[in-house]
Amino acid sequence: MRNIPEVGFGFWKVDKAICADTAYEAIKAGYRHLDCASDYGNEKEVGVGIKRAIDDGLCTREELWITSKLWNTFHAPEHVSLALEKSLSDLQLSYLDLYLIHFPIAQKFVPIETRYPPEWFYDPEAAEPTIELAPVPLYKTWEAMEALVESDKVKQIGVCNYNTGLLNDLMSYARIKPTMLQIESHPYLTQERLVRLAKDYGLAVTAFSPLGALSYLELEMADKTESVLEQSVVKAAAEAHGKTPAQIVLRWGIQRGNAIIPKTSKVERMKENLALFDFTLSDSEMQAISGLNMNRRFNDPGHFCEAAFNRFHPIYD
Amino acid sequence: MRNIPEVGFGFWKVDKAICADTAYEAIKAGYRHLDCASDYGNEKEVGVGIKRAIDDGLCTREELWITSKLWNTFHAPEHVSLALEKSLSDLQLSYLDLYLIHFPIAQKFVPIETRYPPEWFYDPEAAEPTIELAPVPLYKTWEAMEALVESDKVKQIGVCNYNTGLLNDLMSYARIKPTMLQIESHPYLTQERLVRLAKDYGLAVTAFSPLGALSYLELEMADKTESVLEQSVVKAAAEAHGKTPAQIVLRWGIQRGNAIIPKTSKVERMKENLALFDFTLSDSEMQAISGLNMNRRFNDPGHFCEAAFNRFHPIYD
Repeated sequence: MRNIPEVGFGFWKVDKAICADTAYEAIKAGYRHLDCASDYGNEKEVGVGIKRAIDDGLCTREELWITSKLWNTFHAPEHVSLALEKSLSDLQLSYLDLYLIHFPIAQKFVPIETRYPPEWFYDPEAAEPTIELAPVPLYKTWEAMEALVESDKVKQIGVCNYNTGLLNDLMSYARIKPTMLQIESHPYLTQERLVRLAKDYGLAVTAFSPLGALSYLELEMADKTESVLEQSVVKAAAEAHGKTPAQIVLRWGIQRGNAIIPKTSKVERMKENLALFDFTLSDSEMQAISGLNMNRRFNDPGHFCEAAFNRFHPIYD
Repeated sequence: MRNIPEVGFGFWKVDKAICADTAYEAIKAGYRHLDCASDYGNEKEVGVGIKRAIDDGLCTREELWITSKLWNTFHAPEHVSLALEKSLSDLQLSYLDLYLIHFPIAQKFVPIETRYPPEWFYDPEAAEPTIELAPVPLYKTWEAMEALVESDKVKQIGVCNYNTGLLNDLMSYARIKPTMLQIESHPYLTQERLVRLAKDYGLAVTAFSPLGALSYLELEMADKTESVLEQSVVKAAAEAHGKTPAQIVLRWGIQRGNAIIPKTSKVERMKENLALFDFTLSDSEMQAISGLNMNRRFNDPGHFCEAAFNRFHPIYD
């Protein structure tokens, strides 16, 4: 089974207007792993960028690793392949390398012709818009994910945002085992036990938001003062290795054995985020950065669903 | 549906030698809610105490609320009723008021005639004893729990040690809904979001180890310095109300809306732990005690399974 390229390009929050160019430039800069999702609202544009890159001979389809994610409103078994077909069609692909359950949350189905991507609100026009859950067990969604592998439209399947309790349960019923756990992880949220358990079970781990607060400033879900790049242990390592603080934090991410999916709109930054393989952090640097952990989660439906969607729906507590 | 009496007597770690007398004395002291489990290894003795109390006219069976718990090795559907029958037989009862899944962990079956209670080790005589998991999904165990309600041998069913992720999933597939979540909770581990979610779903919550570290000193899973009873806000409230620090912490537990299940071997302490209904903590006292939270979990398989059972098996991370 193919291994995921360690540094991927994450398309969360990449604006549609620049997304096709961003995808093209990312591939040109050397990215071979693209992390997409229905919910990011830009798969059509990513698809245009991929097609242009392949047409221009920058790479072949086989050299790319393309991940997409099943949104919450498509958890019912009869909607899982519908969602995949939509992503494949938008991305102009015949198969995905990896398809992930985006959240362990099943929401009420929204037809594609009504609204796509459906996002969190069931009816955003309602006087008091709220998220609507659907009684779809995760094991039923997983069975439908397994069927996608058997249909050869998806090479590997996995999950995002599962905790140890859900992962243990998944491993007990999965006929086709998950190969990937994607979770928020950075020096302020190391999730050491969850990462270790996933690896014990044979899953690889992808860390989203590998730079921490940076991804959340524009959403006002983090404060500038929370940037891990200002930490003295990070700055000291940057100085010692002649690298940027961001490179130090990203290197820490891959050196602990995870894949990472940073995002940027700047070509120079794309290259910077990929240039992580010509230096090694020492054990004491690794430990010092891991020691910054404070279990600070920026992406938590337990918080934002209540604030933004009028529904208290924690999944990590 | 009957509500659980707020203060129960917990039989975890009650020594067999004194357990029948302890159960009798607890009932005599006024306890009507007895929290038992196969794993506590003393259900026969609790049964003797209950029978003696009923025979002596201290109470009727109907006045008692008796909880027991399905051990990890009995998760397979075909073993669930076997485990219940064993608990009923040991307790000398025809029905339970509440039957709980003890942990969201399915272990390999150990026949009753081989070893009972089975505890955590599959083979304690092995050169390197280890826990052995079994691939039994929680939804299958839950279906078997539902069948017990339908057979009238169990009035209500619920779960222990589930986190929000597992609880969300359970609510999506439960045909007969859980009525109870039993979790570790005390002022150092308030679990506010988990408690709130459970109540949003219509479950009641029972807090085990309501006094925190105290339950874990003898197991060397906590240090004396971790006692919440030494906290100045607790002592101040005790002074103000003319109660003991333990009564303050227990009152905090029920006043926030949870049932609690303290344990003691002393008759005086049994009475003290029940005498919580003639005073009320002020809002500021409640908040100050809740403010002691530090997410300190004493009972965590993610720690003790590795130390004691040669297996890393976190369930809360």
